[in-house]
Amino acid sequence: MPDAPIRALLFDVFGTVVDWRSGVEREGRAIAVRRGIEGVDWAEVADRWRALYGPSMQEVRSGARPFVSLDVLHRESIERVVDELGIEALDGADLDELTLAWHRLDPWPDVIEGLTRLKARYILATQSNGNIALMVNMAKRAGLPWDCILGAEVTRHYKPDAECYRRACELLGLPGEQCLMVAAHPSDLEAAHDACGMRTAYVPRPLEYGAGRERPPASAEGFDYVATDFLDLATELEA
Amino acid sequence: MPDAPIRALLFDVFGTVVDWRSGVEREGRAIAVRRGIEGVDWAEVADRWRALYGPSMQEVRSGARPFVSLDVLHRESIERVVDELGIEALDGADLDELTLAWHRLDPWPDVIEGLTRLKARYILATQSNGNIALMVNMAKRAGLPWDCILGAEVTRHYKPDAECYRRACELLGLPGEQCLMVAAHPSDLEAAHDACGMRTAYVPRPLEYGAGRERPPASAEGFDYVATDFLDLATELEA
Repeated sequence: MPDAPIRALLFDVFGTVVDWRSGVEREGRAIAVRRGIEGVDWAEVADRWRALYGPSMQEVRSGARPFVSLDVLHRESIERVVDELGIEALDGADLDELTLAWHRLDPWPDVIEGLTRLKARYILATQSNGNIALMVNMAKRAGLPWDCILGAEVTRHYKPDAECYRRACELLGLPGEQCLMVAAHPSDLEAAHDACGMRTAYVPRPLEYGAGRERPPASAEGFDYVATDFLDLATELEA
Repeated sequence: MPDAPIRALLFDVFGTVVDWRSGVEREGRAIAVRRGIEGVDWAEVADRWRALYGPSMQEVRSGARPFVSLDVLHRESIERVVDELGIEALDGADLDELTLAWHRLDPWPDVIEGLTRLKARYILATQSNGNIALMVNMAKRAGLPWDCILGAEVTRHYKPDAECYRRACELLGLPGEQCLMVAAHPSDLEAAHDACGMRTAYVPRPLEYGAGRERPPASAEGFDYVATDFLDLATELEA
């Protein structure tokens, strides 16, 4: 029996669609210039900030605290990072502003053209841990042509909780097998498949952690599609 | 003090963006042809179906039943309508199909161009009682360029409950005064304003209930904007 046709593509965003590290670094440098701060490695700030991402969500996943948006978690985490690094010249308003760096990340170079091709044939939705305002502001700035913003704030569960994936497919009115999860992170794809039979597209982003720090891609086995970028994915999906 | 700038436009959809009556009539006729049904006034079916819309949501609003999507309410209501009218040749699968008529409604003639202009300057979100799948399928078919699908299924409250409007603004990260509710129905606008200070744009759609059954527009007093259509609205909002 042939597979059911794919109707919707659900995208991980941080790392898969946008380059969070260089965007956070750029925004940090801009604030540093305005505040006369020197000697801070803003790429290190980005890495430390990102390292707190998983643990901060785990508090929500475990039930230790009620659901709060990623903007709230990011704001708490940056306070820890600047404390750890001894960056003292940033006040609360600066940290509020820096938190919005995550709303202003740039897509990888293939993304806009790839999504535009894919949009002609498929429903394109975000399936990110980022909150709705973050996703909308990012999309407006970068021109990301989403049909629908789904993800953690809609389901009130953080990935990789199974509820995220199950509920996203339900909200689109589609069975999991007609939904394709697209991510640069194998764990996200595996969770989507295990949650509700979503199909999987692995798009490695070797530069996610910076030039010269490429991580080897995971084995291609076990994914329905493997693509080098979104243009390649569009070609594989005949879009 | 000048008003805060408007950042997002939230749209009522049925009646304001799309012509539900002629779309439901068209889809009913198409099913009738396939099933050899004659003598049914499908515009009357549309009117009776729409008349059950408010009461069906009221059961959820009142707490008499838990939240269910508008697709579920529509499917229940059409069963009552065909019973009342004695249309016996439609089976359950036909009624499932007919319920999807609401996913396939056409926009009013000014909508695509008006929204395209408005999108260049504002965030455009749905604030409809329609569920996410309905809104996404409608937008894909008609080319409605939403930035974000909000509304009843995201907030799990039906308009005009205040939670709908308050929560939609919160999810966009904006105070009510930076959000403009756009609707053909004064009651929707009043509820949005009362809920959280949303600003209001009244766009009467005299043909909502069919040609020859135009209703006089409401008084223009009390709304921040009154526009004849979405092109006029775009001009008023300098988009």
